[in-house]
Amino acid sequence: MHTETPFKTHFNAEQAGLESLNIKSSNITFVSVSDMLALINQYGVEQLMLGMVEYLEADFKRWLDFDKSPRFAAHSAEGVIELMPVADHQQFSFKYVNGHPKNTKIGLQTVTAFGVLSDVASGYPLMLSEMTILTALRTAATSAMMAKYLAPKQSKTLAMIGCGAQSEFQILAFKAILGVTHVRLYDIEPNATKKCFNNLQSYSKENDLNIEICHSSEEVIKEADIITTCTADKRNATILKSDMVGEGVHINAIGGDCPGKTELDAALLNRSDVFVEYEPQTRIEGDIQQLPSDSKVTEMYQVILGEKSGRTHDAQLTIFDGVGFALEDYSALRFIFELIKQNKEAQQIELLASPEDPRNLFGLTQTHSTPSA
Amino acid sequence: MHTETPFKTHFNAEQAGLESLNIKSSNITFVSVSDMLALINQYGVEQLMLGMVEYLEADFKRWLDFDKSPRFAAHSAEGVIELMPVADHQQFSFKYVNGHPKNTKIGLQTVTAFGVLSDVASGYPLMLSEMTILTALRTAATSAMMAKYLAPKQSKTLAMIGCGAQSEFQILAFKAILGVTHVRLYDIEPNATKKCFNNLQSYSKENDLNIEICHSSEEVIKEADIITTCTADKRNATILKSDMVGEGVHINAIGGDCPGKTELDAALLNRSDVFVEYEPQTRIEGDIQQLPSDSKVTEMYQVILGEKSGRTHDAQLTIFDGVGFALEDYSALRFIFELIKQNKEAQQIELLASPEDPRNLFGLTQTHSTPSA
Repeated sequence: MHTETPFKTHFNAEQAGLESLNIKSSNITFVSVSDMLALINQYGVEQLMLGMVEYLEADFKRWLDFDKSPRFAAHSAEGVIELMPVADHQQFSFKYVNGHPKNTKIGLQTVTAFGVLSDVASGYPLMLSEMTILTALRTAATSAMMAKYLAPKQSKTLAMIGCGAQSEFQILAFKAILGVTHVRLYDIEPNATKKCFNNLQSYSKENDLNIEICHSSEEVIKEADIITTCTADKRNATILKSDMVGEGVHINAIGGDCPGKTELDAALLNRSDVFVEYEPQTRIEGDIQQLPSDSKVTEMYQVILGEKSGRTHDAQLTIFDGVGFALEDYSALRFIFELIKQNKEAQQIELLASPEDPRNLFGLTQTHSTPSA
Repeated sequence: MHTETPFKTHFNAEQAGLESLNIKSSNITFVSVSDMLALINQYGVEQLMLGMVEYLEADFKRWLDFDKSPRFAAHSAEGVIELMPVADHQQFSFKYVNGHPKNTKIGLQTVTAFGVLSDVASGYPLMLSEMTILTALRTAATSAMMAKYLAPKQSKTLAMIGCGAQSEFQILAFKAILGVTHVRLYDIEPNATKKCFNNLQSYSKENDLNIEICHSSEEVIKEADIITTCTADKRNATILKSDMVGEGVHINAIGGDCPGKTELDAALLNRSDVFVEYEPQTRIEGDIQQLPSDSKVTEMYQVILGEKSGRTHDAQLTIFDGVGFALEDYSALRFIFELIKQNKEAQQIELLASPEDPRNLFGLTQTHSTPSA
């Protein structure tokens, strides 16, 4: 754990890197699902998340440099489509992401996503990337990065409540970044628990990670230092009641992430120190939507900067009420863009009109073109 | 003019058409710049705009079905990057668009854009399209469509103030949709005027369109029935003073489209009947940002539905204070999607993860992949 990452691209705000780009081109870099999987094959999930944590911490430390806003959400009967923009003076990013819990019944993902990284000075997009997989990586990297500041020292046991699409990524992040050695799994659907267990079976043997299947929320949290709740129901549920949870635990609550969707007992929130990404958004979407709008919370950038305390004593009960914030996507996209720039054969798509005289857009329509398909 | 469009895809809300899509696929349709130019070559700019007007009118008539919001804008020293989402119960769309007036000095476009059309029921994106060219088409189609309700009957002469990237599209739209026969051009930069004139020279001969170069705002608006202002300076300018403009004219004011960027004299606005797309957005971005927030304006959907009057008498001075609204991009994307679906060889890009078991996203990372480049 805490190993050095193999990436040459440690963060340097001054070199954050558009100097080598030829933005006159009509092409932008495209990272398809296959390209993302190829990066995972090349570096490994754990190494990618370790590298991403460096970018996340560097960007959270620059928190005040960013233009932030709660995400835009278009709700419908079946789910939600969201746009998550953020920008500093150099780069702009946004992610498109949906959340449709019933999708799995027709063979589709609950969550799909893609994102764009842009150059602020020209307004030109630089990269379009798939983010269904990248979101799973960045969500897990974010959870583990926050836990570095909030979880009990030398946490060894992670309880995983909810074994859906995010679960294996979460487990690998806590293994790689926190060094947990024991993982306990529980999902209300036994098949999900089994899927997660099977996916990690050979990994756990090779890496001395002890993984155990449990059959209730009460059982799964036994002796856990860290409890991750990551369930998918779009309603106010109570995955964890207050009287189930003892002292000295860190709860990584990432499934309560839209209005009307919560996971924790309000009494449990009231007993705990609650940490959030961006308070205005978490008030709308997080588990704290159950609490009065002036309940005490701490924004994590202040903890990461050392301005406020994370965990202060062993018996403290901490909750990271994570909803997923645009800055995390910015960091993830910036990281992937740096990696993909090293690949001279990165895919390009012709997204931008590039007339010789920029004021003569109409001139383009006068030349004969054939579809590029 | 008013010719029948060659498209089979007349609007039908019930058949708005996702039935034939295989959204299990990891691919979505991609319309590159070359693909858009190929559509223009195939159908012609005028026919595309005529088709688009049908979609625009149909969607404006369904105004109350849409979830609307002012666009999201990230302003920087050099310009602005915007996201423009809108949705009804069937489809969601958004456009990414920048505005960077100094870009032309380094050979880049002032405005570039791309957009996505999605299926609301699943949240899955269906099509990614270039929109730099498409925005020029839809802006011109929108201007002309609005003028059908606002311009003097049998308008013959269009004055074009500002001969930048949008100008030729505007002229062709007013020719195709309003039937203007005379166009007068003026830009503060004579090269821009010349570029516009040259681009339309052979077209104007073939189509009996009389085009004249003018050398001042005063000169260009002489005898004009319709005045289009489409200038690019990011500041409060006064392209048209009130005492320059007589009665019985329609002003299509589309260049004042962000905070601090206006084109018309406040006194001119006060003398006129002002029509807008979406009042909350136009108050922020339009020429009416100069007026008190309760100044009288009419939203165009009410005029198109016949609930309110457009032009009522010959001497009336009308202004369409156009800023560009997300619904117009929705209509344009929907139109292009219908066209491109007829092309069996439309380009696809692999933007979506599609694991066999939708809850097993992690499983994808365990298969060996190579980059698709």
